Amino acid sequence: MTQVAILNIGDELLIGQVVNTNAAEMAKMLNSEGFDVTETLVVGDKEEMIVSALRFLMQRADVVLLTGGLGPTKDDITKKILAREFGAKLIEDEKVLNHVEQYFKQKNLPFTSTNREQALVPDNCRVIFNSVGTAPGMCFEKEGKVVISMPGVPFEMRLMMKEVIAILKQHFKSEAIEHRTLLLSGIGESFLSDMLEEFEAALPKNISLAYLPKGGTIRLRLTCKGEDKETVVSQIKSQTERLRSLVEKYFMGFDCDNLAQTLAERLLQNNKTICTAESCTGGNIAHLITLVAGSSIYYKGSVVSYANSVKADVLGVSKEDLETFGAVSEQVVKQMAEGARRLLNTDYAIATSGIAGPTGGSSQKPVGTVWIAVAGKDFCIAQKHFFATSRDNFIERASNQALLMCLENVK
Amino acid sequence: MTQVAILNIGDELLIGQVVNTNAAEMAKMLNSEGFDVTETLVVGDKEEMIVSALRFLMQRADVVLLTGGLGPTKDDITKKILAREFGAKLIEDEKVLNHVEQYFKQKNLPFTSTNREQALVPDNCRVIFNSVGTAPGMCFEKEGKVVISMPGVPFEMRLMMKEVIAILKQHFKSEAIEHRTLLLSGIGESFLSDMLEEFEAALPKNISLAYLPKGGTIRLRLTCKGEDKETVVSQIKSQTERLRSLVEKYFMGFDCDNLAQTLAERLLQNNKTICTAESCTGGNIAHLITLVAGSSIYYKGSVVSYANSVKADVLGVSKEDLETFGAVSEQVVKQMAEGARRLLNTDYAIATSGIAGPTGGSSQKPVGTVWIAVAGKDFCIAQKHFFATSRDNFIERASNQALLMCLENVK
Repeated sequence: MTQVAILNIGDELLIGQVVNTNAAEMAKMLNSEGFDVTETLVVGDKEEMIVSALRFLMQRADVVLLTGGLGPTKDDITKKILAREFGAKLIEDEKVLNHVEQYFKQKNLPFTSTNREQALVPDNCRVIFNSVGTAPGMCFEKEGKVVISMPGVPFEMRLMMKEVIAILKQHFKSEAIEHRTLLLSGIGESFLSDMLEEFEAALPKNISLAYLPKGGTIRLRLTCKGEDKETVVSQIKSQTERLRSLVEKYFMGFDCDNLAQTLAERLLQNNKTICTAESCTGGNIAHLITLVAGSSIYYKGSVVSYANSVKADVLGVSKEDLETFGAVSEQVVKQMAEGARRLLNTDYAIATSGIAGPTGGSSQKPVGTVWIAVAGKDFCIAQKHFFATSRDNFIERASNQALLMCLENVK
Repeated sequence: MTQVAILNIGDELLIGQVVNTNAAEMAKMLNSEGFDVTETLVVGDKEEMIVSALRFLMQRADVVLLTGGLGPTKDDITKKILAREFGAKLIEDEKVLNHVEQYFKQKNLPFTSTNREQALVPDNCRVIFNSVGTAPGMCFEKEGKVVISMPGVPFEMRLMMKEVIAILKQHFKSEAIEHRTLLLSGIGESFLSDMLEEFEAALPKNISLAYLPKGGTIRLRLTCKGEDKETVVSQIKSQTERLRSLVEKYFMGFDCDNLAQTLAERLLQNNKTICTAESCTGGNIAHLITLVAGSSIYYKGSVVSYANSVKADVLGVSKEDLETFGAVSEQVVKQMAEGARRLLNTDYAIATSGIAGPTGGSSQKPVGTVWIAVAGKDFCIAQKHFFATSRDNFIERASNQALLMCLENVK
């Protein structure tokens, strides 16, 4: 199978200022087209690090895809390095020059000599046109290896990847790959692993099983590779059925990189609608639900009731109960769910109220405490959970727990 | 300066199923403690790849921090590899064994032989206790280099990193590092670069400047390194002041990894409150605002009005206008902002209405169209933007644009 390595360049990725989403996005696109990403490396904007990283990856993979360091500023040095590594001179590319000139004209910005340098390309590379930015992509070949450099701006990289994959398909044979992911809840990783020992041992060599624990759930991922798409699809189908029968008791849904996708399928199947009332999760559940394309069919909206006045005035939570039990209580979270279901007129409602921290906790309700409620036509239940962690992780875990609890109760 | 390399292990990171947030988080923690992360590498759960990656990084850095591959399942092979690389035998650690036994007992789960294996550790490593999971961390020393292995579960890694940093401080001298980030809006990267050419050329050797363009804004990051914290702080302060005076016209705020943080400071300074009314951004603006600790002081909440009925019934948008102009229109988005400001009783309100796609567009309002409104006590303005991209990127860019527009109008 063709092996692809990714090299992302940029100091911002090494001080934690920016999360490297490019690597994941590129890997996903490559993988679905039958190319195997074997490693991804991040280095800073330093010449000797970029050169040694590139040489290291070229020894290990058939293809190296680079992002970053192509901008017009001083810290952008990738183009010069590649020209030298591949023994090229930089020449002006007329098509790119016209495009860059137009780009600045349209934005009513002056066209400077620095901008003009964006149109310089190594004379022995294939230029990949960047219709949405100023830095062109560059494709080099050397000793059977292919090296392609792209801008680091996610939006520009994403559009360019289509042409990159087309180039790779010209050079290399892509293999068929299929993944199936089963979402399980209510079982530990080691217990599951023991349970599936025989199943794993009996898997054909071209099929692998991976365990991905996350926030109280485990995703089991089957991966099948082969030359022929049809065979791969039929193989993974039968193994998925076998696996599902073994874990039926804990099975929540299929192919859900996230719970919101699984919930979407369940609601669509049953022709039901849902809404949310969020306090401590602050709109994140709404965000997760609406990331799913087509969510407007079953999702009506949310009341993010961060202030108690909004809980009372908009959702109709009893002011007395807010006073007596506090905002983070079973009584209030249930009234939030019921209030939202009534106000937004849906079949189901999810509500959350908790203390995300870092301040606001007490000895009785420490930071990390969250009440979650799910309301339906003839029920309203609440659960208390505790996630003692950072603010952003608390929000993530409370949101996932709320979606999971909803999934368990949507019929 | 002590050089740290990070090695993250896991197939899920190479097929794009999981974004590698561990690397960014570890880098941020290390950086703030004066350790320089020089590169981060991701490889899959394959023995030969892990071994060669580890050897490569040990040649290049003083410290290698590993995450992943420590679970109880078949695809977890890091511990065995490390034992062999460092010539160790695996022995049972009593403290870890007790902890793991307790862990399963508390969860009412059976304690299997697979669980018991979690208590095996190489006999020549320093064990780093994992209070929140079953896999212990391991610290090895070899030829002056330090190699530390941690679980890949973000929550477990995060807690363990505190001890890891303490170990590194025992072994190596950490340097002082300070970053300052200036957020600019309304200027292009190349134009800015020309403008700052002299400033950059005159910077002392221990100070560097980086450009981070994102969604119509540019973050300028100054980094200063040195032996003495006080000198570093005073140096970066004076350079930051010089830089700010050069870009004053475009300056939006300081040290904002995100716009929500800058908006928070502005609102707190002016003692103002805000709320949101979101359609196409589906709660993401609320989520971004509430990720900021202490946001409950100035943020009251949001109405995520995904369905038109919610726009009309909860926010009071005219049904006639919804019919005549459509939900994605200047008229509707302004009424959403005004309605939310009235309902939630705040000084300011942000509203969005657009078409995130991939379907739902028309020739007059293609996918990517978004109207954004900001309402205050005596004004309500709206702008139309167009982000032709993927659904998740559309949501991200529309949210950032809305926060930016708000920032420009909050006084």
